Parts: sequence; C-alpha cells; structure tokens
Amino acid sequence: MGHRVLTIVLFVSTVAITMAAISLNAHPFDPLSAEEITAVRIAVLASPLVPARPLYFHYVGLDEPDKPDILSYAGYGTSSATTTNLPRRAFVIARADGQTHEFTIEIATATNANASASVISHAVYRGPGFPMFTPNDQISAMALPAKYPPFVESVRRRGLDVANVGCGVISRGWFGSSEPAYGGARVAKLQCVVFDNATANIYARPVEGVVMVVDLDRMAIIGYRDRAAYVVPKTEGTDYRAERVGPPFTGPAAAPGVVVQPEGSGFRIEDGHFVRWANWEFHVGFDMRAGTVISLASVNDTDDGGSWRRVLYRSFVSEVFVPYMDPEEEWYFHTFMDAGEYGLGASASPLQRDADCPANAVYLDGYYADYDGNPVKATDVICVFERYAGDVAWRHYNGIGEPVGDETASSLLSLLLPKYVDNVSCGFSVQFAEVRPEVTLVVRMVVTVGNYDYTLDWEFKTVGSIKTVTKIGNQVGYRLIPAGATAMSLLADDDYPQRRASYTKKQVWVTPYNKSEKWVSGLYAEQSTGDDNLATWSKRNRRIKDVDIVLWYTVGLHHVPYQEDFPVMPTMSGAFELRPSNFFERNPLIRTKPPGNYPNCSCSARSG
Amino acid sequence: MGHRVLTIVLFVSTVAITMAAISLNAHPFDPLSAEEITAVRIAVLASPLVPARPLYFHYVGLDEPDKPDILSYAGYGTSSATTTNLPRRAFVIARADGQTHEFTIEIATATNANASASVISHAVYRGPGFPMFTPNDQISAMALPAKYPPFVESVRRRGLDVANVGCGVISRGWFGSSEPAYGGARVAKLQCVVFDNATANIYARPVEGVVMVVDLDRMAIIGYRDRAAYVVPKTEGTDYRAERVGPPFTGPAAAPGVVVQPEGSGFRIEDGHFVRWANWEFHVGFDMRAGTVISLASVNDTDDGGSWRRVLYRSFVSEVFVPYMDPEEEWYFHTFMDAGEYGLGASASPLQRDADCPANAVYLDGYYADYDGNPVKATDVICVFERYAGDVAWRHYNGIGEPVGDETASSLLSLLLPKYVDNVSCGFSVQFAEVRPEVTLVVRMVVTVGNYDYTLDWEFKTVGSIKTVTKIGNQVGYRLIPAGATAMSLLADDDYPQRRASYTKKQVWVTPYNKSEKWVSGLYAEQSTGDDNLATWSKRNRRIKDVDIVLWYTVGLHHVPYQEDFPVMPTMSGAFELRPSNFFERNPLIRTKPPGNYPNCSCSARSG
Repeated sequence: MGHRVLTIVLFVSTVAITMAAISLNAHPFDPLSAEEITAVRIAVLASPLVPARPLYFHYVGLDEPDKPDILSYAGYGTSSATTTNLPRRAFVIARADGQTHEFTIEIATATNANASASVISHAVYRGPGFPMFTPNDQISAMALPAKYPPFVESVRRRGLDVANVGCGVISRGWFGSSEPAYGGARVAKLQCVVFDNATANIYARPVEGVVMVVDLDRMAIIGYRDRAAYVVPKTEGTDYRAERVGPPFTGPAAAPGVVVQPEGSGFRIEDGHFVRWANWEFHVGFDMRAGTVISLASVNDTDDGGSWRRVLYRSFVSEVFVPYMDPEEEWYFHTFMDAGEYGLGASASPLQRDADCPANAVYLDGYYADYDGNPVKATDVICVFERYAGDVAWRHYNGIGEPVGDETASSLLSLLLPKYVDNVSCGFSVQFAEVRPEVTLVVRMVVTVGNYDYTLDWEFKTVGSIKTVTKIGNQVGYRLIPAGATAMSLLADDDYPQRRASYTKKQVWVTPYNKSEKWVSGLYAEQSTGDDNLATWSKRNRRIKDVDIVLWYTVGLHHVPYQEDFPVMPTMSGAFELRPSNFFERNPLIRTKPPGNYPNCSCSARSG
Repeated sequence: MGHRVLTIVLFVSTVAITMAAISLNAHPFDPLSAEEITAVRIAVLASPLVPARPLYFHYVGLDEPDKPDILSYAGYGTSSATTTNLPRRAFVIARADGQTHEFTIEIATATNANASASVISHAVYRGPGFPMFTPNDQISAMALPAKYPPFVESVRRRGLDVANVGCGVISRGWFGSSEPAYGGARVAKLQCVVFDNATANIYARPVEGVVMVVDLDRMAIIGYRDRAAYVVPKTEGTDYRAERVGPPFTGPAAAPGVVVQPEGSGFRIEDGHFVRWANWEFHVGFDMRAGTVISLASVNDTDDGGSWRRVLYRSFVSEVFVPYMDPEEEWYFHTFMDAGEYGLGASASPLQRDADCPANAVYLDGYYADYDGNPVKATDVICVFERYAGDVAWRHYNGIGEPVGDETASSLLSLLLPKYVDNVSCGFSVQFAEVRPEVTLVVRMVVTVGNYDYTLDWEFKTVGSIKTVTKIGNQVGYRLIPAGATAMSLLADDDYPQRRASYTKKQVWVTPYNKSEKWVSGLYAEQSTGDDNLATWSKRNRRIKDVDIVLWYTVGLHHVPYQEDFPVMPTMSGAFELRPSNFFERNPLIRTKPPGNYPNCSCSARSG
C-alpha cells in the first residue's frame, strides 16, 4: 500500500483598517437560508435561458458582495456603518444537456419566507473540469452495479451476495491523454465493498480488483474491468463500535471531563452567525463546498481605548488534496480533492453532542441545495465552544532569591529590600505568582469524506492580531507559526496529480486579493488539469507589497498507514497559528480579567 | 537586542521487555525523602575524608540502582517480581576547601525516620566546570553589592537608592582564554535591577551598564565595571498584576472552564509516586537538577490478553540551554544552562492551585537539599491531572450514500441494502457515528529561572507504545513526531557557547544506554567546556543497532522578542510525540471504554 499525503490549503484574506461599528441586520455574509435556496431554485428552473431538463444543481452558494461594499456596509474605515442593505445574490452551478451552466441570481428579500429571485446572468462553462458531485450522483450510481450483469457475475465468482455489496463514486482524477476522454462526458469510477452488517467498517472489506466507469450525467456504467479476484478480508477485529469490541475494555477507563463554567458562557452568537467573545468578534458562515467560513474577524485593543481592529476579512479551507500514491490499477486514481469534488459543507457530519464537542458547546445548522435545488438542512454541523484544557496563557513567578529554609536568608532579604519585604512578606521568603488560564474559542466542523473524518477547528486566542501603525517603530504585522509538521508533496512535478495540485509544492503563498481567486484548485476541481489553480495564478507575478493580500497556507500530513490505524485511526493533527508581531504595544492578555477567586499574587512560604 | 534560542534536550531511555508484575514497596526510583536527605547530610559531615569546613551541598540526589537490578526488582523479563529491596544510595556533590567533592552514600533504611547512612565512596573532581549553584550562592551574593563602595557610587550616580536595588547571580558561561581564569576560582557575574515595589516586573528595570564578578566560594566581589549609565526605564505599563493593570479589562472576559468528572478521577497514585491510569502505569520522581523524572512507563495491551509492555525506562529534561546571542558587554555571557547551573527541581515554582493546573489536579511535593544539606520541602511542584480539552481521540461517521432529503434515495437504499436498512434504519437515511473523547494524563512542573517560566508537561495518551514482536511482519517500533517548530542553533560551531552545547546542532541523537551519560551538557555544566557532552560521547561511534538505546531530542524555540512579549510574554509551546508504529496489532483505543451515556452509534436523519 502506498502512503497518502493529505494537504489542506487555507485561504486567509487580511486587511488592516480600523473599524467603527457594525450593523448586524441581515448580514451580507450570512449564508443562504432555506427560503433563499428555494427562491433560487424557482428562479433557475423558471429561466428560459436553460430550457433543457433534467437540470441538476451542483452548487448553490452566496455570491458575496464586493469587498469595498462590505467594508462600507460594516463601517470599516468610516465613522459609522451604512444602513443600506447590500444586494443579495447567489451563485449557482448546474448541469443540463451535458453542459455546465453558471447562474447569478438576485434575491429580492433576504429574510422573508416569501423571498423571490431572478436570474441576472447566465453562462455556459466550456473549459476543463466539472463541478462537485451532487449527493444524488452518489446515491443513484450506487444502484447501478447490482443491475449490471458483469458485476453480478464478478460478485458471484467471489462467493459473495450482491445484496451485501455497496458501491461508491470515486473521482477519476486527471491523467491526460493516457486515459480515455469518453467524449468529454462527466465520468467517474465506481468501487465496491462488502456491506453486510457484520461490521461497521465497510472500508476494510473491499471487493478488490473491480473498477467500473460510470457516466454520471447519463447515470450508466460505460466501462468495466475485473482484473483479479482477491479474497475479501474477514470481519474479525474490524468493527469499532463499542458493543462489538468489548468487553474486555482497557481499564480502568480514562475519566472524561465535563467542562462547566461557573461564571457562565463567555460568548454569544447574534442573529445566528455573529460571534462575540472576549476581545474578538467574527462572522461564522456555511458553504456547501468550503464548510465553515470565518469573516470579518476583529480584535479589540483595550490598551488603545477599546478600538476594534480587523484581522481576517474571510478565511476558509479552500481544498483538501489526498493523493494515495499507490500505483496499483485500482488505487492510482485515488487523488481526491475533497472540497472541490465532494464538498466539505455537503459532507459535514452531524456533530454528536457531548462527544464531538464538549458539553458547553453551542451548535449551528447549515443549509445547502440537493441535486434538485431543494434546501437540505444539515443539522448541528458547526459547534462553537470555549476550550479550557488546563493550560496557562501566561504566568510569571517571582521569588526574591530562592525559597529558603533558614533565618539567615530571611534577614538578608530584610536588610536588602526593607520596603519590599514590609509590603509583601510571608514567613521566610517573598514570593508571588501571577497566572492566567488559557481559554480559547473554537469553531469546529467535522467533515467525513469516505473513510476520512476531518475535524476542522478555527481557534481564537485572546492574544490578538494585525495593526496598521504601532509607536516603537518596529515593523508591524503578524507571523505564521507552523504548529505541527507540514507535508511536502513527494509527487514528481510532471505527474498528473501533482500538475492539478501544483500549489502543494510550497507551503505558503501570498497573492493580491482578487474576489474570483477563491478555490485553490480552481472553480472546477473535479477532473481539473491545473490550468486554474493557485500556482498558475501566481505566474502573473503581481505586486504583493503594500496591497491587500491573501495568505494561502498548506497544512499537510503524510499518512503512512500503521497497524495502529486499523480499524479506525487515532486522530492526527496539523495546525498553524497566526500570531501578532509588534501589532499591540504590549501583551494584550495583560488586560484580560482574571477569573473570580483566581489565586493570583498569592504569597507562600517554603520551610525546611 | 539579540534573540534568544531556547533548546530543551530530553533524555528518553527505552527498552522493550514484557513485564510480569511490580512490587511497589519502597520503590527503588523513589526520590530521597526528607529523612534520607538528613541522613545523607550527617554521613557526609561525619566523614573524615573531607574535614575542611565550610562544606556546602550543591547536589543531593538518588544514585539509582543499575538497570539490570531495577528490571529484576520490577519483575521485568521474569515470571514474578523479586521481594528483595535494592541497596538505597545517594549521590552528593559538595564544595569544600575550594574543591569539588563527589560522595556515594549508602542509606541503611529507606523508609524509616531514623534512617542512617554512610559514605561508601569519595572522589575529588579536578576537571573543568562546576556543580549547580546552591540557593545560598544567590542569596548570599545578593547582599554583597550594597556593601561594595564602587557599586553604591554607581547607583548614586544614576539617581537611585541602593536600598531599592536587587542583584542576581548570572552564570558566566565559558569563553576560553579570552577571559580571565581567576585562578580556577568558582566565579559568576552579578547584575542588578531596580526593585522598589513600584512594579512586580523587576526585569524591566535593569541597572544597565554595571557588571560585577563574584567569587562564590569566598563570597566576595573580585571584579567591577561600570561601562555606561543608562536611564532606568519607567515603571509605567510594566506591571502585570491584575490589581495594577485594570480596570478597564478586555471584555467580556473569556469564561474559564472548570473540569468536573462525573465518573470520578481515572487515575490513582500509589505510595506517592506510582501512577496508574487507563492503559498506563509509570513512576513519577523528583530531582533537584532534572525536576520531574518519569520511569518505568508501561502500557497495557488489552488485545494481547492484558499484558504490560514497557515503553520508557527513564525520561527527564536533561538540559535547557538559553544563549541570548546579544554581543553587548552586559549580555554576551548570558548563555544559560538552566538545569545544570540553576537546577530545574530546585527552581520549580509552587503551582498555583486551580490556575497553573485545573481543578481536577492532584499535587505532589518534592524534597531537595539546601546548601547546608538540610532537606527543603518544595510544596506542590508537580501536578497530575486528566486533561480533557473537548478533542476527539478517534471518530468515524458512516452514512450510506449521503444524507438525503427525498424518498427516492431511501427506497434505493432499501433496494440495495435490505438487511442493513432493516437493522439500523432511521427515517430517510442510515447514519451512525462512533466517537471517543481524547482524555490524556498530564504530569506538569513549572520551573522559573529568572525571567523565564517553563511549563514542562509529560502527557500520556491512551494510544500507547513499543513492542518486541507483533504478527504482520512490519518493522515494529515507535516514531518521533515533532509537534511544533524545532530550533536549529544559529551560533557558529567554534563559538564558545556552541562548543559547550554542541549537541544542539542536531535535533535527534541516539546513543547506547550508559548509566553515567545522563546530563547532556555534562555532570559539571556550570562553566563547562563541551568536553563532556552528548556530542563528545557520540564521537565514540558506538553501535546502536539491536542494543538498549537512549533517545535524545531537542525541543527548541527561537525567541525573537516582540512587543506582545512585554511585560510578560504569552505562552509559546514546543513539543514532540512518541507514537507507536506497528507495535499494537490495531488501534489500542478501540478497546477504550466509551464514557457512560456516550452518544455512539446514534442514528439520525436529515430531512429537507
């Protein structure tokens, strides 16, 4: 088995403008509501521009207003926020008549259940690549193999029951002219597993050796190969459900904690999307491709009269690239782009309360469109919680000299430091400690794409961010701190999967802000060829000094499978931190109020 | 100001032997008790081998039994533990008559308040370097400047009151023949700060420009230079104590969590030192130089019939090297070796309950010897707690197809997977998630050396460690995962500070186990010359394949000071993980019992 490299690229757009106030009435970054998605659907289906049927919706999402309008709306850079609502628009990608259609839709009333909408632009996309699969692509394709005689025969030959076999759509990647073009049809591959309820671990029991090619628009199998009939692994030891694996359990069990907050929750969520916590405020959105979207994150500078300073304009996971790097005929094309092919938001797992997130979490829903354009409620897909792991944000301990055990030292201290000892004296020694707990705010989504579960956290620390001017004359900014290994792609530069994801050869990219450069692997990532990705855009060599920039960072893991990853692998983490660097005049945590009854400036003695 | 590089080297000794049982009666790795330290003191002072007085104790610690004896005692590799107690010995370094003396002491009764002891070996050390400072070196030296007329005059010239000035002993490092040898005397430097109770932040107000040389054995100032009278910085904005900085506080405050454990604590500490938790057991010791010492950590393999497998024989922080890399006359010699010069255990800060450690922590004390050999109780210097940060140890979500919103998909599922749907059906879709919380066990010490506070955590995960045999035929072992940046030393190879800490040019070293190779910077780190450090030992090029090995890992941070680090810097972290690699046959967490009422295998539906 080859090893898999998993790279997640994050889009982080930053500006540095002092803001005044924010109006939160129907925020322009709010994701489309169920009513808005319905109105969009009606507008597209009613449009005479695309009469062909069936028409399937592959992407429906917010077409965000232009950045200057958002800044003006929110009152950034001006003395007050405007009260005018911005135009509310959606962007739609649909397939009909074997073509990819792009629509821009204007929605008349943002918050009304009777919202109406109309198409304001339409285009046919004729370049390489396809939009994300719809959920229905998966579900409908699953039904094909059981009715396909060669597959039924392959299954029979392996001594299996076709009723116990389930199949899934696997993106085919892109391998240039080395593979059939299928006349430009939207094709994928189908691979199957034994799925007989003997184990929950369906991925441990592949029907290895069989690969089908499916035309997803015609929803028909158009290619078939049964190369070799491998024995299907046994179910023994593969199930991971508690009632199947134990007892005996490893014991005694680690005792789980429950976080309670005697002083109550420290954050609130306004209008369903705007979070205020400690010295931070930000907007949480949802997109069927990107998943969680963090916007307009600003930090308050108490030392600067309580001014708000913006740190992030918009940030989200732009792509998750997972080349398996196994040359076998059934594995080489496993070169997934999970966001652009399957959709992180559409694949978000409903969070298990008190398990995926702690007891003090608040949960948010998302809405996306199904293949027919109807809204799907994705329940509990985002949780927000204050995280307290028992760590310390900052501390300092002062003892005069060292802890002492005799009176000689004590009298020496008195001799040397009479004023100090008079004021803060305790027994033989003079000591005090000042400690602040590390409490952070986490915005979490868990995305399950096939056999991988991604826990994607945005964690806010009270330590803050970017600024335009600071007084000492240092270069102001923030620094990027990798917190975990980064994975350099090991693919050759001219390998097809690497050409599609050529940006993974560098961990950090900076580009000038451009609203259309949002998806690192291109708008049409499925079967993309690398002609519309970050590395390509960067060849234009645009100026990035003294302009509004976007930071792209690749978090990566080389997943070399170990025995311990079976049947379900333990969590592995990669992360990075953006940390202010000479933005604040001093540690912004100094003005963080210590919790009630917090034992600071305590004075303790040690004796022999 | 130059930047500081901070490297922490950890000693990790591993073996891989299946153990049978452990007798915990007076464990041979228990640190010396107060009674034992007293007995050791009496034995040294009563010995005719060193009649010279005064005699000061620089190090008193456990002289651990040889490894084969420990293994035999603990029953590793045999069918049962022995019941014979091993000889109990102490190692002492003392200064008398201007010489460094080493003693080995045998203690007659380990657990008796009337323990007696006798010297069984004595040697005079005549090589380069000196033992750790005693606490009294600091305290006594502090008293010297106020009685030293040139210093009193320097202070007066700066418009300061000598009663408001405090001084500290700064190790002088080693700079070869470029500096005076002072006839081989044990000298250090003295530097001072204004200490007038106007601010707790004494390090922000140095009496810059003045450096004194002190002979610590004679306890006299033997060198003095006042190069330039800088203005002492103002106190404004320097204090970090809550009552001095606020209000206004940054608000609303982040709400701290309190971890409660409804199912009780998951660990217990036997005989004060032996910790049992989940699938782990290990011994926690204390040493005045190393601080926390973890020994005999073993993991239980439930899948292998509940056998115990040893992972770490002994592990501790061997050195903390902090070269400031500032060429100024008052700063160039700041090339601290905090463990070898000041002692991590002796500098351990009393942990602030519910602040340095969460509410569910258990606290341990330590004992070390003061300069006169008397035991000093270091209260609450180690805490042990179960850490629950709201993270997930492993999870997997299975949905058949994707969440669906119509009956077509549901009927397709029924058609395809009748057995499965019969068993686990819920509405339109079939989904379940299995999640286990990440609960870890942390052993924490906070060490304050001057202006730096080090939080040193050993964190145990239920995910496990090394093994001798496994069945698949993979290469067994564990892997080292850096979890955070490592700091490569930027000093030139022939720079004196780098020669002392030449091992910092590589992040990972492996040596064959040798009981005497314990301190990475040498037994006598103070003014050491690099002739007895890890890099030197490694030049012997000993075999490391198929032998008992020691892993040395350097965690490092380049601390480039930013405005935000003032007046107290926010916590920065560096870490590494040792993770089993084909040791277990499968994920050992699979057999971790889920918490009561844990929502696994839940079945939920999404509808449109």
